[in-house]
Amino acid sequence: MTTLDPADGYLILINTFTVEPSKAEELIAVLARATEAGMRHRPGFVSANLHISHDKRHVANYAQWRSKGDLDAMMKDPAAHVHMREAASIATSFSPIYYDLCEVHSVK
Amino acid sequence: MTTLDPADGYLILINTFTVEPSKAEELIAVLARATEAGMRHRPGFVSANLHISHDKRHVANYAQWRSKGDLDAMMKDPAAHVHMREAASIATSFSPIYYDLCEVHSVK
Repeated sequence: MTTLDPADGYLILINTFTVEPSKAEELIAVLARATEAGMRHRPGFVSANLHISHDKRHVANYAQWRSKGDLDAMMKDPAAHVHMREAASIATSFSPIYYDLCEVHSVK
Repeated sequence: MTTLDPADGYLILINTFTVEPSKAEELIAVLARATEAGMRHRPGFVSANLHISHDKRHVANYAQWRSKGDLDAMMKDPAAHVHMREAASIATSFSPIYYDLCEVHSVK
């Protein structure tokens, strides 16, 4: 389970992939494998949360990292690029955006 | 605090706004006010999680609703449109996409 709390101060990477609907499940599987085989063992990885859109034209990864430095270190490692290239080859485009979580409004 | 768990079965709405960097904070304030004054009292609202990108060119609302039916009911209410128009007038564009949360990979 993932928790969203601005007090954690995590870097949030929301990567939105555009994909042919017939390939959405395959992309989810590649991202899941990339996370388990690579990302989750790297310093500063907190979570990856994989979403599929109702029309299956988008896949979104809502990822938390301890800091931007940790994410940058991962991005510089050629080993990480293998998985990124595989995901990019399935998607028609992708848009990674770095965020800070500012506010949570919740009924819980 | 917000929790992400596929077992909840929530509808996830990720709305990504593109904005002039000078207006990013204003848009966050409008979305926060809209959430507190309207959304959070509606049946099925679970959470709104407001993000600002590092370059301040994007604002993202990661919202959880109990079901698509609850979100559709809100969208049909003219009272909700006042806030949506206000947010839309500040942003240069926005892209709401409906998702299901498929998988969580977390170190916690």
